[in-house]
Amino acid sequence: MSQSRSQKLAVALVSGGMDSCVSAAMAQRDYQLAFLHVCYGQRTESQERKAFEEIAEYYHVKRKLVCRVTHLSQIGGSSLTDLSIPVDEADLNRKDIPSSYVPFRNAHFLAIAVSWGEVLGAEAVFIGAVAEDSSGYPDCRPEYYRAFNELIRAGTKPDTTLQIVTFVIHMKKREIILTGSQLGAPFHLTWSCYQNTDIACGRCDSCALRLRGFREAGIDDPIPYDHLKNLL
Amino acid sequence: MSQSRSQKLAVALVSGGMDSCVSAAMAQRDYQLAFLHVCYGQRTESQERKAFEEIAEYYHVKRKLVCRVTHLSQIGGSSLTDLSIPVDEADLNRKDIPSSYVPFRNAHFLAIAVSWGEVLGAEAVFIGAVAEDSSGYPDCRPEYYRAFNELIRAGTKPDTTLQIVTFVIHMKKREIILTGSQLGAPFHLTWSCYQNTDIACGRCDSCALRLRGFREAGIDDPIPYDHLKNLL
Repeated sequence: MSQSRSQKLAVALVSGGMDSCVSAAMAQRDYQLAFLHVCYGQRTESQERKAFEEIAEYYHVKRKLVCRVTHLSQIGGSSLTDLSIPVDEADLNRKDIPSSYVPFRNAHFLAIAVSWGEVLGAEAVFIGAVAEDSSGYPDCRPEYYRAFNELIRAGTKPDTTLQIVTFVIHMKKREIILTGSQLGAPFHLTWSCYQNTDIACGRCDSCALRLRGFREAGIDDPIPYDHLKNLL
Repeated sequence: MSQSRSQKLAVALVSGGMDSCVSAAMAQRDYQLAFLHVCYGQRTESQERKAFEEIAEYYHVKRKLVCRVTHLSQIGGSSLTDLSIPVDEADLNRKDIPSSYVPFRNAHFLAIAVSWGEVLGAEAVFIGAVAEDSSGYPDCRPEYYRAFNELIRAGTKPDTTLQIVTFVIHMKKREIILTGSQLGAPFHLTWSCYQNTDIACGRCDSCALRLRGFREAGIDDPIPYDHLKNLL
């Protein structure tokens, strides 16, 4: 990533997954990026952290912040943060909110991003939320980000001009993969599985969405799977 | 606090200060309260935690959550979380944002309260934000809480009905003290000073606002001060 002093500064939330990686790949065309990662006691924390570090290295990002949030697992209520709640098998036709929903999770990540961005003087926060082609989490919807931008306008200093930008929110996974592919996004470094930390399970919602996206894009997914890729 | 099984449940953010204590005193008339406290690396963390525990004990609160947030001091940018930035002497006529502003702090607290409240099935979150008679923080304004309630509507499960309630937001400190006094709020257990952890300094904005409020209410402040109470 070439960076000039005159470039505008932005914070990119980078989970280690593919949507935030492509969102950052798009953002780095116009912004000098500071990478933010949050470990929150989720099942695959170590693998996601590793993916974050490798993506940051790939893009030669100098400014990084890794935060550890312990209260989401204190609070629980999700199969990602409470080991007694099993991760559901994939069901991409599900209409209700899946057990992997971590209550109000993205507000925690965005609050950190905005606090950091306000101190850095950043102009944007990039997050890889996906609305339609996703697990149906309420905090991934466009109206949620409109409300968050209103919150930032109301609740920061008068000279803070920060906005949340959701480049991939209306994209299908197929489009995210095609866009990332054109931009040279390092899919081989990303991690999507909700369950495993060595070889992706191929069975959870997140693996299923990823596999379907690669198949529809006509591109091979470069990461290995435990389960046969015949899920869909 | 008498609690019946049929009472509605709510989360009260209790910092250890006087505004959130009175807000909780008002809320506990109608709700069974779960008390939430956040330690965030602020100068007076230990004293505020102690005040929280004592206020919880005073109200016989059974459900408590204490969270430790490390990233606000990682991020810095405030005299409360960065020891290299001095706490300003009180200036109650100041028009700009004081150095004690912790960038976007209340969003972190509210995110935790909403996540916990959503898991508990709570109907409200009480926060003791004060708009006018305060230090002028942008995340204490009514429009900020309107935006946050919009965010909750957009970003939680369909059956979550949680709302942020700001009982004291339009009150003067004098009114907060008179209301708390009528309700038997334990002012002797609260802590407001930004700077000290043993005897309140009497010099910072927070001490100055508190002292002026008690003077205008015609009530003696029950906590001891290091500095003579002739500041105002």
